[in-house]
Amino acid sequence: MGARNPLNIGAVARAMSNFGLFRLRVVNPYPVAFREARSAVGASKLLANAEECKSVAEAVADCALIVGTTAIRQRELQHPLRRLEYGAQLIRRQLASSCVALLFGSEKRGLSNEDLSHCHWVMRIPTHDEHSSMNLGQAVAVCLYELVREAKATRPSEKVQPAPAGEVERITAMLFDALGASGYVRPGAASSTHEKVRRLVRRLAIQARDAQVWVGMLRQIVWKLQSGGASKDDQALGL
Amino acid sequence: MGARNPLNIGAVARAMSNFGLFRLRVVNPYPVAFREARSAVGASKLLANAEECKSVAEAVADCALIVGTTAIRQRELQHPLRRLEYGAQLIRRQLASSCVALLFGSEKRGLSNEDLSHCHWVMRIPTHDEHSSMNLGQAVAVCLYELVREAKATRPSEKVQPAPAGEVERITAMLFDALGASGYVRPGAASSTHEKVRRLVRRLAIQARDAQVWVGMLRQIVWKLQSGGASKDDQALGL
Repeated sequence: MGARNPLNIGAVARAMSNFGLFRLRVVNPYPVAFREARSAVGASKLLANAEECKSVAEAVADCALIVGTTAIRQRELQHPLRRLEYGAQLIRRQLASSCVALLFGSEKRGLSNEDLSHCHWVMRIPTHDEHSSMNLGQAVAVCLYELVREAKATRPSEKVQPAPAGEVERITAMLFDALGASGYVRPGAASSTHEKVRRLVRRLAIQARDAQVWVGMLRQIVWKLQSGGASKDDQALGL
Repeated sequence: MGARNPLNIGAVARAMSNFGLFRLRVVNPYPVAFREARSAVGASKLLANAEECKSVAEAVADCALIVGTTAIRQRELQHPLRRLEYGAQLIRRQLASSCVALLFGSEKRGLSNEDLSHCHWVMRIPTHDEHSSMNLGQAVAVCLYELVREAKATRPSEKVQPAPAGEVERITAMLFDALGASGYVRPGAASSTHEKVRRLVRRLAIQARDAQVWVGMLRQIVWKLQSGGASKDDQALGL
């Protein structure tokens, strides 16, 4: 998210190599910083292959679990805030069946509310109260270490496959359309309203097997709301 | 041990602050690097109070356990080599009764055999085989994190409170009405269709705090679908 310092981008890439992770996606980096980081002496293949994304939505589209990171203990956000030790267990469990995105904010401001609205929950590293804010590269190293460290036999959970973020975002957009067409949300509502809806949908934990059904139902509801009444006899029933 | 880069010394100090450790001893630093690190903008009190030592022996004199760090898996040394996860347990135990020294080598060469001869044993961070060598500041952050992490990962204190069944059923009924009014479900659909919708909603695991919002949104959507368009200006917006 908007990293400014090429050294920090390089440090993130190095920590990833150290712990065996290879897919780095950089959202809206400062162009100069990203270019410098990639062309630095000794820049890794990982960094050369880093993908540049225009938005968080694009960066996380194929992930089923999106986890934000924060240095702040109390944030007026509605997300569950989990300590790294526990959060990493949940991430490892999810990794058995799908991709997981771990979001880090920019050096100065961390993740924005808009960034956070894409997250299912938020994780914090158990740092000292008075110096809670970590350097970006160090925070990434600590999080990845916790992910690869050997824990006592994590028990496999029952197989619940969450829907990929791209589908969840599609459902969110359709719900927002339905709320607009029904008058629940005023036209031109503030972006904070959109973020609230996005968080609401993320808290639902929609499963992969159900995503298509929700899309179908919402499409029909939106179509009906917008067309104002004509019946659509040839509608293929999803149920 | 002979750190060359002031940024790295600063990063070590920052990680120590983050994890609540305050006694940094620097052995034979490159004088310029050390001076620069100490005088850097925002240099912490910790760094200002860092002690400069002439030898490892002097730096560890008051410690009862001396642990070296290495990136190398196989070293022709006679020391026990322990993974960080296990080593940290031993260190924590020792810390209950005495000081422990954790030694990090210089960026280029790590700890020398002379340095290592002061150590009781050696610890390694479980990095990936092909990229085992970590950045100094990141390695320190990971080791200190492991020392302060809570072995018994605290279960989420934040309790996710599921919505009571009565409210979930109310949401289910309203969704069913919306599906009927939109034409997604045919009038007089089989009861098995109703059951499918119910199961679908149960799989969402709606939270108690969100139930009212979902009821409000669905009520408005159903009302709009059934009324076919008149706008309801006095609708209280839930968002």
